[in-house]
Amino acid sequence: MTTTIDGRKVAQRIRTGVAEDVARAARLGGPVPGLATILVGDDPASTVYVAAKRRAVREAGMRDFHRSLPATSTHDQVAAVIDELALDPEVSGILLQLPLPGALDAAALIDRIPVGKDADGLTTASAGLLTRGRFGLRPCTPSGVIELLDAARVPLRGAHAAVVGWGELVGRPMAQLLLRRGATVTVAHEHTPDLAAVTRPADVLVVATGVLGLIGPEHVKPGAAVIDVGIHRTDRGLRGDVRTAELDGIAGCITPVPGGVGPMTIAMLMVNTLQAARWAADPGTPPTTPPTTPAALPA
Amino acid sequence: MTTTIDGRKVAQRIRTGVAEDVARAARLGGPVPGLATILVGDDPASTVYVAAKRRAVREAGMRDFHRSLPATSTHDQVAAVIDELALDPEVSGILLQLPLPGALDAAALIDRIPVGKDADGLTTASAGLLTRGRFGLRPCTPSGVIELLDAARVPLRGAHAAVVGWGELVGRPMAQLLLRRGATVTVAHEHTPDLAAVTRPADVLVVATGVLGLIGPEHVKPGAAVIDVGIHRTDRGLRGDVRTAELDGIAGCITPVPGGVGPMTIAMLMVNTLQAARWAADPGTPPTTPPTTPAALPA
Repeated sequence: MTTTIDGRKVAQRIRTGVAEDVARAARLGGPVPGLATILVGDDPASTVYVAAKRRAVREAGMRDFHRSLPATSTHDQVAAVIDELALDPEVSGILLQLPLPGALDAAALIDRIPVGKDADGLTTASAGLLTRGRFGLRPCTPSGVIELLDAARVPLRGAHAAVVGWGELVGRPMAQLLLRRGATVTVAHEHTPDLAAVTRPADVLVVATGVLGLIGPEHVKPGAAVIDVGIHRTDRGLRGDVRTAELDGIAGCITPVPGGVGPMTIAMLMVNTLQAARWAADPGTPPTTPPTTPAALPA
Repeated sequence: MTTTIDGRKVAQRIRTGVAEDVARAARLGGPVPGLATILVGDDPASTVYVAAKRRAVREAGMRDFHRSLPATSTHDQVAAVIDELALDPEVSGILLQLPLPGALDAAALIDRIPVGKDADGLTTASAGLLTRGRFGLRPCTPSGVIELLDAARVPLRGAHAAVVGWGELVGRPMAQLLLRRGATVTVAHEHTPDLAAVTRPADVLVVATGVLGLIGPEHVKPGAAVIDVGIHRTDRGLRGDVRTAELDGIAGCITPVPGGVGPMTIAMLMVNTLQAARWAADPGTPPTTPPTTPAALPA
């Protein structure tokens, strides 16, 4: 019997928790957190994503700052917008929507975001804080995966986890978050010669490869928790990196696509924005952080 | 037939290469790299280590800066010394010898070292650069392990590597350096319930646990490369985390203790100091770094 992990439900619970925290702080006269989204160009998918993020910000009772820049913007023009938002005390978090058009250097522009406003957790400074186990904002998708595993009551300490894919946005921080929770972690990637051999011992399998339907029954230990981070548009609708239907009765629990990891990314962005606002209000935040996710949320 | 990897020989080759590079640059009228070591207190082991590092600096033809501070120094006093060295253009690299006495906050003091002078590669900023695959100075011991594996012609791309121990100084950066070289990497630690089950599939086994003699034949795949980062003083002399004698005829190659990984740490510190000097001279260093080790050394 395979359980489906309902990412929409978990994401909604987290977003409601953030909204309650924001409302409570506002009643006490505290500052209202605000997220600034920056969209360069008019890529259709990016436009949709940014709109969804802004809607979530408003639904959480936070302030929605937004900057649209033309696709022809220069590095210095984008940098100037980031610098201005970095100095604005009403802006708690800054999100630069990726990918950037043209020859813009995404890594350099992201690293202009101050670590305390790094709502996406993607700066080099945030990566360093995660590696060193210090307080900081964590990348949204992998911290959302941890929330899903916790919601499904999957034990992590002492578990063997396999992370397939070693990208900057998911795989690398995912491995570190799982290690921090006490899992033994194997990271596999395109140079792994026998993928099934390294994924089959895993109690927890997180797949973030961008390869449609890569993972099937041959890769999965019976009873394992399977988290599918992939998302692909196909003729038969959205599909992931996992051949989910084939794992029915094999996986212990599994995330669907859509409705699994996807909704968690925005939920964790809300958590990070709230957390950034708290961090700004109290810079004496503990130098090390025991919890995996940045915010202690109401249950 | 098990081959012993001669760390002293590899380290000497690297140190000679650094000395030749330093001499060549000096002939061209370039600046001479300099390393500043900071020793707080008079811990006997730290005193010996710092003396060895200073000797290596002088042997490489680099400038030896050194500061000794009393064990009673305050955070602000140590910080002031770091800040002064950070501003000194003749100081290419700064090394704060660990452990620090008393209640000094090592993490905070290390993070005062500018990323460009982080000769030990231990700052949060350097950890972030490593995670993101960008140019930076890498921690000396794990980059020394990569050099040993290369010297022993152990293939890494497509290999399965197991790293036992997830400490900040070795295990975490080690896993990332191995991944960057294309290995599939498993990280095990004290919460791993069945260590042999995760180490036995490994073609490359790096052990950095601080547990004397933890690893024996039951953990090792025949023909595997075994790197022992542990060092323990025992009644029978120095020993590592690996029961080396028991692996004779099982391991394909193995590092001895002493004379394996140990000498590499100082060699890589020399590489980092040279690299820091080059970085300072040409801040337009490439934003991403393909090689694992920070310096392209003469063969």
